[in-house]
Amino acid sequence: MKAGMIGLGAMGAPMARNLAKHDRLATVWNRTEATAIRLAEELGVERAATPSRLAEAADIALICVSADADMLEVVHSLLPGLRPGAIVIDLSTVSCATAREAARLIRSQDANFLDAPVTGGVEGAINGTLAIMVGGAADTLEKARPVLEALGRRIVHMGDTGMGQAAKAVNQVMCAGINEAVTEALGFGARLGLDMPKLIEILAGGAAGNWFLEKRGLTMIQGQFKPGFKLALHQKDLKICQTMADALNLRLKVAEMALEDYAELLKLGHGDEDISTLYRLKRPAS
Amino acid sequence: MKAGMIGLGAMGAPMARNLAKHDRLATVWNRTEATAIRLAEELGVERAATPSRLAEAADIALICVSADADMLEVVHSLLPGLRPGAIVIDLSTVSCATAREAARLIRSQDANFLDAPVTGGVEGAINGTLAIMVGGAADTLEKARPVLEALGRRIVHMGDTGMGQAAKAVNQVMCAGINEAVTEALGFGARLGLDMPKLIEILAGGAAGNWFLEKRGLTMIQGQFKPGFKLALHQKDLKICQTMADALNLRLKVAEMALEDYAELLKLGHGDEDISTLYRLKRPAS
Repeated sequence: MKAGMIGLGAMGAPMARNLAKHDRLATVWNRTEATAIRLAEELGVERAATPSRLAEAADIALICVSADADMLEVVHSLLPGLRPGAIVIDLSTVSCATAREAARLIRSQDANFLDAPVTGGVEGAINGTLAIMVGGAADTLEKARPVLEALGRRIVHMGDTGMGQAAKAVNQVMCAGINEAVTEALGFGARLGLDMPKLIEILAGGAAGNWFLEKRGLTMIQGQFKPGFKLALHQKDLKICQTMADALNLRLKVAEMALEDYAELLKLGHGDEDISTLYRLKRPAS
Repeated sequence: MKAGMIGLGAMGAPMARNLAKHDRLATVWNRTEATAIRLAEELGVERAATPSRLAEAADIALICVSADADMLEVVHSLLPGLRPGAIVIDLSTVSCATAREAARLIRSQDANFLDAPVTGGVEGAINGTLAIMVGGAADTLEKARPVLEALGRRIVHMGDTGMGQAAKAVNQVMCAGINEAVTEALGFGARLGLDMPKLIEILAGGAAGNWFLEKRGLTMIQGQFKPGFKLALHQKDLKICQTMADALNLRLKVAEMALEDYAELLKLGHGDEDISTLYRLKRPAS
């Protein structure tokens, strides 16, 4: 079973490389054509002229794009080439409602859809160690599992269509809160005059230990904010979360705090930096 | 080199057991006598009648109590028995100012003081895997290291007297923020109707992964809040942090949010529960 990869950005490109490494990649497509040409050549696979041609050439079409509208546009444009029984898997982060709309479109062609957003950062995409949260039919996931195993280490079926995206929304809220926690605490440490690398080492080994501190602690105190995960994208995700929470009449206080801080950072022009750029607001002024 | 252990509570008792296991424990003392009698018998060591007698009988006096006033009271009462060149190590969490006051008192007897607060929870104390943040003279730490190695896996010299407590303050702020992040996100997940054990499994493997989620996620969704780390103690620590931040003219927004939530939980009578009891405020009402 071979896959086609649509969307060859910071996450999609390393995913395509891992699929190729496991001999699971047939073809690629990207909105910016030059990127697709380069990667197809690097990996020795076909470059599809359109998403529809990609769907014709692969058993599974994987999508990894940035926004809800992009994902639906790709789905619409691959429909003509989609074979009955084929599988479309969206690895992007979009709302549950968008996932359900995509599933409806795919089902109209007698094909199958899974929402399968991922977590683990660019590192996870490169190393093939992503965690993948899957919504949709369990038997479709079992068919697709050999392909997903090229991308991630933990692949968990969360429930019906949209439940993968629900799990991802929870993940994004937790990441926002951890970003607030880690940057505020390290800013405090800097003001207390602590040796910051030593501080990060010791905190990582205790009850405050977390992925974000381990992966982004040293870079943030050095003022390096290369993504990683772009602030502007996390803001987009958190707005989706807030809409979902509003519909449940639920307040997400930590996510609200992050959205306020992110808005300030975006105004300052830091939207393309890693989310750890939040440290800019928390570190000592003096 | 043998140690005496003062304070045999949730953290101190397992620490004493690990010292005994490494043949580093000579004697114990506890404010509630019955606890000391029981543990001395269990471990086959002396029970000191007073902190002063404990100081006479040990090369290193270790202190693990709950509050600043308790720690200073213990230091005052062990001074008469303290030998020149002896070492007193405070493993409690107190303010930097209290640590400096204790150091002044100990130095008046030509003895040496280290502030050495720990992190890693009750699990860390039981397994001897605590992270220990040390302030004070580096050569004193090197002398004491064989004893501390019975308690912890990472022992880091953070700087002069008080810098161990400064690092611990940063740790407590980070833990407060992570508690807010994890409980808010899991409350959101419960409202979205997600399978919670699956959700915790998948989140723990990605960019939101953290110690607190791994150790307290399942228990909190089951409504089990056995400490662990008592809410009332974390509140005490966060108040110390806030005082320290005020002195630096620094706002700790996440810690403030936690203090507001903790105040509400204390009013509801949950102060003796684990800090994950914060989930009570975040989980679905319906």
